[in-house]
Amino acid sequence: MNGTKMLKEIHEQPEVLARVLDEGWTEVLAAARTLRERGFRFAMLAARGTSDNAALYAKYLFEVLLGVPTALASPSAFTLYGSEMKLDDVLMIGISQSGESRDVLETVRRSGELGASTLSVTNGEASAMAGAADHHLFLRAGAEESVAATKTYTASLLVLYLLVEALRGEQTPSARARELPAAALEVLGTGWEGTDRYRYADHLVVASRGYNFATAKEAALKLMETTYVVAEAFSAADLRHGPIAMIGQDFPVIAIVPPGRVREGLDALVESLWERGAEVAVICDDGALARHAAVSFEVPCSCPEALSPVLYAIPPQILAHDLARLKRIDPDAPRGLSKVTETW
Amino acid sequence: MNGTKMLKEIHEQPEVLARVLDEGWTEVLAAARTLRERGFRFAMLAARGTSDNAALYAKYLFEVLLGVPTALASPSAFTLYGSEMKLDDVLMIGISQSGESRDVLETVRRSGELGASTLSVTNGEASAMAGAADHHLFLRAGAEESVAATKTYTASLLVLYLLVEALRGEQTPSARARELPAAALEVLGTGWEGTDRYRYADHLVVASRGYNFATAKEAALKLMETTYVVAEAFSAADLRHGPIAMIGQDFPVIAIVPPGRVREGLDALVESLWERGAEVAVICDDGALARHAAVSFEVPCSCPEALSPVLYAIPPQILAHDLARLKRIDPDAPRGLSKVTETW
Repeated sequence: MNGTKMLKEIHEQPEVLARVLDEGWTEVLAAARTLRERGFRFAMLAARGTSDNAALYAKYLFEVLLGVPTALASPSAFTLYGSEMKLDDVLMIGISQSGESRDVLETVRRSGELGASTLSVTNGEASAMAGAADHHLFLRAGAEESVAATKTYTASLLVLYLLVEALRGEQTPSARARELPAAALEVLGTGWEGTDRYRYADHLVVASRGYNFATAKEAALKLMETTYVVAEAFSAADLRHGPIAMIGQDFPVIAIVPPGRVREGLDALVESLWERGAEVAVICDDGALARHAAVSFEVPCSCPEALSPVLYAIPPQILAHDLARLKRIDPDAPRGLSKVTETW
Repeated sequence: MNGTKMLKEIHEQPEVLARVLDEGWTEVLAAARTLRERGFRFAMLAARGTSDNAALYAKYLFEVLLGVPTALASPSAFTLYGSEMKLDDVLMIGISQSGESRDVLETVRRSGELGASTLSVTNGEASAMAGAADHHLFLRAGAEESVAATKTYTASLLVLYLLVEALRGEQTPSARARELPAAALEVLGTGWEGTDRYRYADHLVVASRGYNFATAKEAALKLMETTYVVAEAFSAADLRHGPIAMIGQDFPVIAIVPPGRVREGLDALVESLWERGAEVAVICDDGALARHAAVSFEVPCSCPEALSPVLYAIPPQILAHDLARLKRIDPDAPRGLSKVTETW
């Protein structure tokens, strides 16, 4: 199970998170100061793929912690339909690992023309998007060579979390945020014997809710990209509004169950899935859920719910990697994908 | 293939659309007049399940045709996380067939307290949500008895489209909107021999883009609910950013290819899926795409792209119904679902 770029990059995450905290805070603080002075009443996030899952996480951060209504942008509204949205008082954030994703770039550029403050979050320091936005936040993840993004994802989450802390007026990263690199190392050191059972699964569902709906979506995306399994993510509430009908005996479900406000509803979901005969794997921080789960990954440390997506993203990355290797698929180079995707 | 409530309700759509146009316009106009006077700069839409797909359609309408940045609300931000969003200048629209969906109801109620103008779109005239909102638009779809929503979906789309026309200052529904009932009747009269091939498919992808991304999501939801196939919807751009890796030889894809701005990109997608060996079914208004498709449903009438989701929703409804019957599943009563879903 050694030798892939993806696995190497998964294991670089503690040091990347530490670098974001140590070296990234100054520019986060500077951007936040200007944004607070200018003010904004509404936020929009433009991204694709893995970065779009980071955007979903940021939507919850902005709405819950800042009280700012936040939209995930539809790039086609700008690029295909020529929308003339009035974007005064709007902060548009573009997120892209490469910073070269064409429709996201155009969404950021055009938003600026329409009156928005613009901010880019990219791992490419000299990227086109960094040049197009008023403010740039760099991920400092180092070169990411595997097509399947891992360390740039968790780096994006942390950068966006720190941005929200700075926008709330904090002058230093919180103690809980500073615990993340060590916590990520602990998660990476935790064994997981859950891979083999998915060798012949050709579909599965990943469920979570709230801040970790993003984690479920990213887990599903990682599994689709690297193992070709048809993985679909749902918030627990959306799952109950229809799709749960398809879940019967032996249907594989991965439930991401962080601590916090969503815990009670997710416990109930896991129980009802178990009653339907589904085979549930849980990723959670205690063993209590194991009574309804066929397999569990126990996250060995606690953290506030709003930060938990950084840690809970890691077990699904490992699962996606290991399952790809088990299926003799190269997770670094999924068929038909390249590192920079051109869409318009 | 007779005898289900779902099929009966699918066939009621032309008359429901006519009723929305004939009887619904006055209240749409009145609501729009008040909303224009008060003014709003941002819109948010709260909904679950099928209604959430109508909300996604409305996001494009508001952004493209009104120039208003629009967010799909995350109910948990209000119901679980106690967000204190500042919602002055925001229009919050709640969409619910029953008008009793608890978390959507609470999102609308709480938004009003936080300063938003609120509007409900429901098929239950005396529903709790209608009572909780400043303005109510009724779907006039008649009782919908099948758990799988069909006529309330297309009625929602049309009501939201008419709302946007009225917000743009129109005094009567446009001629193109008034053509929809007759066009829907034509679509319903068009034969479709595409069902049997999916008898043993246990997963499929539905792809579209722009206004019809909602159609793809609703098609996937209908298939999951009534046939238990694992159906996942993607915008063409999102599909290329990762998930396309899972699509290889014989993978079933349904492409919804309306006329208009998204046509060129979707043509290219269909061709690239065909080159990967996927089996593509296309729903489109001309036969030109058939060269890369194993099967096609030809929509027998033309309409503007912004209205096309009303018509393009119908062929997937028929497919979901017919496939459920073929699999001897009762599409009126999917396992584990009820007409009003309680989530919190």
